[in-house]
Amino acid sequence: MKTLRVELGARSYPIYIGQQLIDNPDCFLPAVRGRQVLLVSNETVAPLYLDRVRRHFVDADFIVAEHILEDGEVYKNLQQFEGILTTLLRHDFSRDCCLLALGGGVAGDTVGFAAACYQRGVDFIQVPTTLLAQVDSSVGGKTAVNHPLGKNMIGAFHQPLAVVADTGLLTSLPERQYLAGLAEVIKYGLIRDGAFFSWLEEHRLPLLQREQDALMHVVEQSCLNKAAVVAADEREAGVRATLNLGHTFGHALETALAYRDWLHGEAVACGMLLASRVSVARGWLAATELTRIETLLQGFGLPTRLPAHIGADELLALMRRDKKARGGKIVLVLLDAIGSARIDDACPEPLLRECLSAS
Amino acid sequence: MKTLRVELGARSYPIYIGQQLIDNPDCFLPAVRGRQVLLVSNETVAPLYLDRVRRHFVDADFIVAEHILEDGEVYKNLQQFEGILTTLLRHDFSRDCCLLALGGGVAGDTVGFAAACYQRGVDFIQVPTTLLAQVDSSVGGKTAVNHPLGKNMIGAFHQPLAVVADTGLLTSLPERQYLAGLAEVIKYGLIRDGAFFSWLEEHRLPLLQREQDALMHVVEQSCLNKAAVVAADEREAGVRATLNLGHTFGHALETALAYRDWLHGEAVACGMLLASRVSVARGWLAATELTRIETLLQGFGLPTRLPAHIGADELLALMRRDKKARGGKIVLVLLDAIGSARIDDACPEPLLRECLSAS
Repeated sequence: MKTLRVELGARSYPIYIGQQLIDNPDCFLPAVRGRQVLLVSNETVAPLYLDRVRRHFVDADFIVAEHILEDGEVYKNLQQFEGILTTLLRHDFSRDCCLLALGGGVAGDTVGFAAACYQRGVDFIQVPTTLLAQVDSSVGGKTAVNHPLGKNMIGAFHQPLAVVADTGLLTSLPERQYLAGLAEVIKYGLIRDGAFFSWLEEHRLPLLQREQDALMHVVEQSCLNKAAVVAADEREAGVRATLNLGHTFGHALETALAYRDWLHGEAVACGMLLASRVSVARGWLAATELTRIETLLQGFGLPTRLPAHIGADELLALMRRDKKARGGKIVLVLLDAIGSARIDDACPEPLLRECLSAS
Repeated sequence: MKTLRVELGARSYPIYIGQQLIDNPDCFLPAVRGRQVLLVSNETVAPLYLDRVRRHFVDADFIVAEHILEDGEVYKNLQQFEGILTTLLRHDFSRDCCLLALGGGVAGDTVGFAAACYQRGVDFIQVPTTLLAQVDSSVGGKTAVNHPLGKNMIGAFHQPLAVVADTGLLTSLPERQYLAGLAEVIKYGLIRDGAFFSWLEEHRLPLLQREQDALMHVVEQSCLNKAAVVAADEREAGVRATLNLGHTFGHALETALAYRDWLHGEAVACGMLLASRVSVARGWLAATELTRIETLLQGFGLPTRLPAHIGADELLALMRRDKKARGGKIVLVLLDAIGSARIDDACPEPLLRECLSAS
């Protein structure tokens, strides 16, 4: 087991990375302050792993309750959020209770937001079960649910007590979900870690075969990169914005598709390629690097073209509504090179429209 | 105009207190960072004052939108909260927008929580129009909405940019609402300011007649007391809990009445008298002080007896679910003397039941 640490003063916390961690009570029990624990999972993950996690708390005589969410980005909404709060209140859980999110990014974001708001803030633990959640959404304290008019528009910054990333769980992930998670992994290489990008190019086969050593390295390297960025800028006043590479395009795409059809990571992959193409058009990124990026994304079966029925104008309108937009002006994360990101708040819209139309 | 300051480091902010402040653009414009402002009020207050506030922002060329809430504690819920977010998104408001809450505690709490959650946190200004909101809920950054199973159970700590307390607005308040606000004023005297309690005893008539000098003193002294407590303990880890004198009883009472029939301040008044009675039963408060408290509350027409149809067992069950309860144990704010509060987490339930039954 490896232990990383997200350094945030009084809100610092450990990330545990390794195999079979969900069977290890020491990953869970030391963090919990009170005696009440609400285990939240979804209908897909709960039958697989919930018993293995519950056991530790039952054995240690905690008051344990459960709440099962519906599975899917379309359920990351205020109704599911309210459902968690109702369960907490029905069990008379107090301010020193602890929530535990066992699932992917949807579960983690929804449970984290519920923990942020229940009685104005209670503790929670992240147990991410997808690659996407292990390398991205479970680390950094961003919690949110979607609004019909925009993704992650209702949320809070609320740091977990601990993140338990069990890489053994990744072998049972559906292929498509696993590959979508690799999009966020590639992102770290693109924005700040060129050596990691090269490592990914060289380890395509072991990654496609989900070899444990490769998975451990991927999760560790991703979390190291993310933890460094979050520690430098917890509330996204500056450098943290670079973590949104591909996300302004990707979120608009997900909204246009009503959070169906494409997985988040797939939309981000397509968005990263669009951002790379705009970077070339801006004269910042070399065309040869664009080719490397496209090759790696396609090598992991990730989409690099927009769906035919999504128009450039529709996407642009949605992008203007993005959280990163400032007074209607689109703010993009672009690339100078593989391993180096920059913010662009002055991209001419005709150029942007052209890149979107060409996709 | 008087200016107090809530000292919270980077989150410090001014409280402006005086007459006709809503006509003074300098109370509003300097605080706002971006160009987009959402004015939120309720159907009662908006026709009276919204134009006077809107003017300043229109004159200064802001992008101004409006959202009108339904009026009443029963509407302090997730639906109204979501409505505000929908308006923000419909207008494509970005992360540097500012919300303004013009109304009583319900509007302030709901708008503040919406500001806390919209895109994970945007700015807001409090313009409290009731005495209760001016002396209590608008100061200190506690925001929340109610859940059917408990009051203020869904919320966040989120400090405003400024509080504009126009005492001129208090003269048009319905009598019952005005008197309910005095309950929270009396609370500051009880928990930490015996001299202020005596001043209130001596100024019953000018207060009943709502003389501006008396109102200014009441708002200023209340905000000074509250700001000092909040600055010492923003997140209610310690002394801030004393601000909840009467509230554990009061919240349970409001929940039992489904947030109808009684105003919040009325429930708090009754709760403070119950707390005082328990304090006497615990041997901490002198019976003569209990009499002074009862006399002052009744002198302002505030209720000091529970409604006949509310039973002690029902209230006790609801109190166990209070945010201040710890693992089902009721935590009370009691009094040593007028001007001195103490926390009691070991009150025997039979004694508590007896005091409730005797009321």
